[in-house]
Amino acid sequence: MIGEIGHRSIAEMAQRAREAARRLASASPAAKAQALRRAAARLHGDWDALEAANRHDLEAAEATGLSKAKLDRLRLTPRVRDDLVAGLLQVADMPDPVGEVEGLTLRPNGLQVGRMRVPLGVIGFIYESRPNATVEASALALKAGNAIVLRGGKEAFGSNQALVRLLQESLQQAGLPAEAVQLVPTTDRAAILELCHLGGLLDLLIPRGGKELIELVQREARMPVLAHAEGVNHLYVDDGAAVDKAVDIAVNGKAQRPSTCNALEKVLVHAAAAPEFLPRLEAAMAQAGVELRGCERTRELLPGVKAAGEEDWSAEYLDLILALKVVDSLEEALAHIARYGSRHTEAICTNDHAHAMRFLREVDASLVLVNASPRFNDGFQLGLGAEIGISTSKLHAYGVMGVRELTTTKWVALGDGQVRE
Amino acid sequence: MIGEIGHRSIAEMAQRAREAARRLASASPAAKAQALRRAAARLHGDWDALEAANRHDLEAAEATGLSKAKLDRLRLTPRVRDDLVAGLLQVADMPDPVGEVEGLTLRPNGLQVGRMRVPLGVIGFIYESRPNATVEASALALKAGNAIVLRGGKEAFGSNQALVRLLQESLQQAGLPAEAVQLVPTTDRAAILELCHLGGLLDLLIPRGGKELIELVQREARMPVLAHAEGVNHLYVDDGAAVDKAVDIAVNGKAQRPSTCNALEKVLVHAAAAPEFLPRLEAAMAQAGVELRGCERTRELLPGVKAAGEEDWSAEYLDLILALKVVDSLEEALAHIARYGSRHTEAICTNDHAHAMRFLREVDASLVLVNASPRFNDGFQLGLGAEIGISTSKLHAYGVMGVRELTTTKWVALGDGQVRE
Repeated sequence: MIGEIGHRSIAEMAQRAREAARRLASASPAAKAQALRRAAARLHGDWDALEAANRHDLEAAEATGLSKAKLDRLRLTPRVRDDLVAGLLQVADMPDPVGEVEGLTLRPNGLQVGRMRVPLGVIGFIYESRPNATVEASALALKAGNAIVLRGGKEAFGSNQALVRLLQESLQQAGLPAEAVQLVPTTDRAAILELCHLGGLLDLLIPRGGKELIELVQREARMPVLAHAEGVNHLYVDDGAAVDKAVDIAVNGKAQRPSTCNALEKVLVHAAAAPEFLPRLEAAMAQAGVELRGCERTRELLPGVKAAGEEDWSAEYLDLILALKVVDSLEEALAHIARYGSRHTEAICTNDHAHAMRFLREVDASLVLVNASPRFNDGFQLGLGAEIGISTSKLHAYGVMGVRELTTTKWVALGDGQVRE
Repeated sequence: MIGEIGHRSIAEMAQRAREAARRLASASPAAKAQALRRAAARLHGDWDALEAANRHDLEAAEATGLSKAKLDRLRLTPRVRDDLVAGLLQVADMPDPVGEVEGLTLRPNGLQVGRMRVPLGVIGFIYESRPNATVEASALALKAGNAIVLRGGKEAFGSNQALVRLLQESLQQAGLPAEAVQLVPTTDRAAILELCHLGGLLDLLIPRGGKELIELVQREARMPVLAHAEGVNHLYVDDGAAVDKAVDIAVNGKAQRPSTCNALEKVLVHAAAAPEFLPRLEAAMAQAGVELRGCERTRELLPGVKAAGEEDWSAEYLDLILALKVVDSLEEALAHIARYGSRHTEAICTNDHAHAMRFLREVDASLVLVNASPRFNDGFQLGLGAEIGISTSKLHAYGVMGVRELTTTKWVALGDGQVRE
C-alpha cells in the first residue's frame, strides 16, 4: 500500500519535472545563471538552518554507528559550503550550451542543416551519502536546461531536503519552475526500482555508488543509464621507462587520495624494468603507508611482499593497498588490462614512442594516460569544470560528465520550400 | 533444451565477436576500406548465387502468403545490388573516424588532453525483412571499427546467410577477422531475448522494426539501446505561411514515399490560414490519392472529409492517409506536437521569423524543419552519407545514425611525469 502510494507520488513528481523541464528548455541563459547565483548567496544566508539540518542527520547517523569516514563525507563544513559556492558561481559563469548550433552547412538544394544543442529533459540521479552532490548535480542539470529528480542516501535525507528547498526557492526567485529540482521523499530501495521503471518520464538515469547499486539500475532501468562505476586502474611500467617518474606517478596515483575511483589499484611492470623499479617502489610505498601484494615474480624480487590472489586482480581496494605484477611484454600488459580493467583509467609509463601510441590507441578506458598520474581523471583536471560523475558506459559520454554531457543535439533544417526529389 | 543450446551459441558468437572487435579496433583504415571494396566487387561476382538464395527465400515467403509489399522489400534486384555496391564504395571512401583526436589542449601543468574517437565494440542489430540492411549495417559497423552480430528476419534468412558469407570472405581477404560480422543462426523471438541479455558482451543494441519489437528490446536490454522508432510527424502551417509552398511540402511529405518513417502523418493549420489552405490541400491530396481525416473544424471547411478520431492523432499510418487539425495558435500546435509527436520529424511552414525560431528551439524531435519537407530526415539528404537508422532516443545519437554515431570518444592525456598536487 505504501509502495503503491510511493509509486504514484514518484511518478507524479517525474510528471511535474517533465513540465518544469519543458519550461526550462526555453529559459534564458540569464535566468538560469541568476538562479545559480541566488543559490550560492543563500548557502551563506541560510547557513545556520543548513548546519542545523545537517547536525540532525549526523547525530542520527552516529547513533546507528556509521563509520568515521562516512560521517566525514556527510558533514557540511564551512569549507564544503565555500567549495559549493565557488562551484555554483563557476557553473553560473560558464557559457550556456543550450541553443548552440554546430556545423550549419548548406546542402546543394539550398537547405541549411546543422545540429542544435538541447537539454536531455528529466534526469534521475541516484546517489549516496555526500549532500554536496545534491547541489553539484542540480547545478549542472539546470545549466544544461534539464529538470532533475534526486534520490539521495538515507543518512543525508534532512540535509538534502534543506538544500533542495534552497535550490527551489532560488529557481522561483529567478522566475523558473521550482519543480525543476525535486527530492524523492523516501530513501528505501523500492524508490530506486520505481525510478528505474519510469520509462517515458525520465530521459536518463545516473546511478553513483557501489557496484551493487549500479548493477541493479543497469538491470532494471527502462531508460538510458550512465553509470559512474568502479575504477580497477592500472599503471604499466615499460622497459626503459624513467624509473623516478614511474615511482612518483604510482605513489601519486595510489596515495594522494586512495578512496576515489581514479586512484591507482595495480602496477604491471616489464620484467626488464622490475629489478630496478620494484625495490624503489617498495621503499616509496612503505613511506606512504601502502600495503603491497605481488605475483610470484614480484615476490622473488621483493620477498617481504604478501602474495596476491586471483581476486586481487579485479579488486577495487579504495584503500592504501596496491597489487603488483611482472609481465614479459606490452602485449601481456594490454591483455591483462583488457581482462581485469574496468574501462575507467589506465596509464603507461614509457619512453618508447611506438609503445605509447599503441597503448593510447588500444586500451579501452574512459581516460588513457601516457606518463601521468591516473588521478587526472577528473572534470576540473581535464579542463571541463564541474562534473556529475565519470561514465564507464561508452554511449553518449565516456569519462567525465559535465554540463555538455547532460545535453544532446537535434538536427535543424532551414528552408524556403524545399521538397525531396 | 534448444533454448539452452541457442543461448550458449549466441553468447559464444558474441564472445568471438568481442575478440574480432579488439583486432578490428586497431586495424588500418586501408584494410577496412579494402574489405568494403572486396564486398562490393563480390556482389557482382557472386550475383548468381545471391540471387538463387534470395529466390529460395521469396518462394518460401510467397507460400506463407507474405504481402506483395513485403515481398518487394525482400527481393534482391539488380537495382538493389547496384545501390548496395554504390553504398559500399561510398563508405569505403569516407574518411576513417577511428583514431581522430579532437581538441587536444595543453593544461597549465603541461599535460596535453583531448578526446580520441574509438569504436564502440560489438553492436547487436535486430531488423526485419530487407536483406539490404545486412550489408548496409555491416559496412557502417566495420568502417567504425566495430564487430556486428546480426539478427535478421525469418523471411530473409537464406539471403542474409549468403550476404554474411560474402562479407566474411571479404574481411578475410583483407586480412581482417571474419567473425567481425556474424548472423544469429535462429530467427525465433527467443534469439532476440538472448541478445538483450548479453550485457557485458554487446556494447549497443539497435532494434529496427515495429513498435512491439522496439518496446520489447527497450524493456529487456541490459545494454544501451538506440531505437529506430516510429514517426508520428507533423507539419504546422502558420498564419501567413506561403500557401503554395505549404501544399507542396505537405504533398511531398505524405505522398513521395508514404511507407517510410519520415513521411508526414498530420497537418496542423492555423485557423486564419485554414480557409485558403485546406481547400487547396484537399485538391492536391485528391490528385495524389491521399485519404484525408479531419477534426470538426476541418470538416466545416471540407465537408467531404471523414472525421478523425482520438486514435488518429497518435497513429503512424505509413500509408496514403493524412489527418488534419485546425488550431488557434502556435502554442496550441506546440502543445499538440509535444503530446502526440514521437520525437522523429516535425516541420513548420511560416513567414514569421519569431515563430520559426520558437518552433526550432522548442520542438523536441530528432529533426525540426522550417519550410521544408520532413522527407529530408535521411542520412544522405542531411549530408551524412549512409545510415543505420534514425534514433529517437536522445542519448548518444538523436536522429540519423551514420558511421560517426557508431563510435565514441575516450579521453587521452600525454604527459612527461605529471602528478596531481
